Amino acid sequence: MAEEKVVRFGILGCAGIATKLARAVGMTSNSSVYAVASRSIDKAKAFVSANNLPPEVKTYGSYEQLLDDLCVDVVYIPLPTSLHLEWALKAAHKKKHILVEKPPALCVEDLDTIIEACNNNGVQFMDGTMWMHHPRTPQMKTFLQNPDLFGDVHLVNCTLTFAGSSKFFEEDIRLKPDLDALGALGDAGWYCIRAILWANDYEMPRSVIAHPGPVLNEGGVITSCGATLSWKDGRVATFHCSFHSCLTMDLSIHGSKGNLNLYDFAIPYEENTASFFTSTNTNFRDTAWGPKPSEHRVTAEFPQETLMVQEFARVVKGIQDSGGKPDSQWPSISRKTQIVMNAVKTSIQEGLISVTL
Amino acid sequence: MAEEKVVRFGILGCAGIATKLARAVGMTSNSSVYAVASRSIDKAKAFVSANNLPPEVKTYGSYEQLLDDLCVDVVYIPLPTSLHLEWALKAAHKKKHILVEKPPALCVEDLDTIIEACNNNGVQFMDGTMWMHHPRTPQMKTFLQNPDLFGDVHLVNCTLTFAGSSKFFEEDIRLKPDLDALGALGDAGWYCIRAILWANDYEMPRSVIAHPGPVLNEGGVITSCGATLSWKDGRVATFHCSFHSCLTMDLSIHGSKGNLNLYDFAIPYEENTASFFTSTNTNFRDTAWGPKPSEHRVTAEFPQETLMVQEFARVVKGIQDSGGKPDSQWPSISRKTQIVMNAVKTSIQEGLISVTL
Repeated sequence: MAEEKVVRFGILGCAGIATKLARAVGMTSNSSVYAVASRSIDKAKAFVSANNLPPEVKTYGSYEQLLDDLCVDVVYIPLPTSLHLEWALKAAHKKKHILVEKPPALCVEDLDTIIEACNNNGVQFMDGTMWMHHPRTPQMKTFLQNPDLFGDVHLVNCTLTFAGSSKFFEEDIRLKPDLDALGALGDAGWYCIRAILWANDYEMPRSVIAHPGPVLNEGGVITSCGATLSWKDGRVATFHCSFHSCLTMDLSIHGSKGNLNLYDFAIPYEENTASFFTSTNTNFRDTAWGPKPSEHRVTAEFPQETLMVQEFARVVKGIQDSGGKPDSQWPSISRKTQIVMNAVKTSIQEGLISVTL
Repeated sequence: MAEEKVVRFGILGCAGIATKLARAVGMTSNSSVYAVASRSIDKAKAFVSANNLPPEVKTYGSYEQLLDDLCVDVVYIPLPTSLHLEWALKAAHKKKHILVEKPPALCVEDLDTIIEACNNNGVQFMDGTMWMHHPRTPQMKTFLQNPDLFGDVHLVNCTLTFAGSSKFFEEDIRLKPDLDALGALGDAGWYCIRAILWANDYEMPRSVIAHPGPVLNEGGVITSCGATLSWKDGRVATFHCSFHSCLTMDLSIHGSKGNLNLYDFAIPYEENTASFFTSTNTNFRDTAWGPKPSEHRVTAEFPQETLMVQEFARVVKGIQDSGGKPDSQWPSISRKTQIVMNAVKTSIQEGLISVTL
């Protein structure tokens, strides 16, 4: 029997996060790193060597050359956000499937242009929200969807913060207005907004209002902010994202009959196991209350980024083999996340107004 | 040696929570239940018997009679909030020290009138926020005040909800506009606001804005709401209180260097031990992050309401024995909590405006 053809990844740029992706691809059985491009061929070669990629991996000294390589199936785009539009469009036009780091675009219009190009060229679009692919995620959803154990969603709180070093604040692209103008909102805030939408089955909030006290650097890039989202039936969600506070990844979801809490929602404390905590019908007793939340440990055969690559390669292979259409769910949830994120930015820019969606 | 005189409590009204207080007093060494009053003498007698109080406990068929008893040192007021002003003033004028259930008043003006009467009559005022007296509380404060372990407060999130039964919604005084017009805000929200102020060393927020989607019953009583508080240096806090969601008592406090989380802040899961979780300088590692939060278990010699009564009796005894002035800290933090609570109510009433304090 012939060996099954694997999906060939081309990595566009050698950003730090590309290291994680290269490792992830190497751990899958249905994909391989086929080529790496940087603006300098030396950087591309150094990336291949530093990441112990096989010597046959192609290296290119320009992004265009990688896109011109007919053997590349998928392009992974870890470039600064301001470059996503240009390179995602070029990749789509070259019929490359696109896995793009979050945030996928600076604004909803740019993302729509990218998604349209993907649809027109029959290629898959997915953003790099890795935690979506952890086996914990569907297990938590099963709990949330259980009318007896959880009931209806009433409230979601999500906090994703880390304390950047002085080097981070001086050098990181997430602080540069011409590179990643969305700052902490596009980075940490993206995950929070996605988690909130995920908890609400991607039903869009009716309004978004930023919290007072957003912090912006001298270039106008958000380094800390938060917002309250609300739905027309009274559901509420709040989030806070920051580059200034101790590392936190809390997500709590409160329902009519149950609660779900976890403290490492975006990146599990450990690669191969992750926990979440649930409680159901807790109640007051004579002198105390309970029961206490119970812990659910989930084993992950592979790190979540590996599972993301595997899933993306599976979807791409399905399109290649059957000539089918791209899956519309992934671009749809990217777009919803982007809409909410940009509404938060608008609220901040316009003096903390309530933005109606 | 003569037996030390204990502080004699008079209980004004036989509400459910008075049972807890009567038990608490019985567990202290420096106080006793001396008298119980109800609007009917039979109810007062039934309360004494149902709570296994000593037969020598006096019973009165009117609140006035209890206040006229010169042997009563302290009056505990578990009456509906709308009656607090009248009975707290009458008690203060009779030189009784006052322990009043939260919320202490319907509005700041009423509370100021009560506190002024207490000061003018040289009697102590304290509200019944029991968790303040749990030994966990100062231990958590020690963590928050440590510049190396926690740093500066950036964000507080607090959620206190429970799912009321249909009987609760029909009968409970917290649903009646003429009795407890502040509803979930005055009950569950009071604890959240106090926790937020406590975490911020009682520094008042600059602004308060209610979240969209507050739920009010047909009488206009709030049954679910939330708000965002903000300080002029950018600190933010959010809370959510509700009678409609599964029992939750989450408090998370995020700082520049550390985090503090607990899940039973207002009433510990168990009476004699309680935990909180801290993390400090957590960071990303190669393929994961950590360390995970560490649990701190605190042993409580007595239930928190017993410790509250003991503390109140200690303060009262100090005033009685030395002729000193009442402690101004307790009324001060009640007042701050009341101001924020009423600002939330104003924000809701005025269409979710931002209320500047």
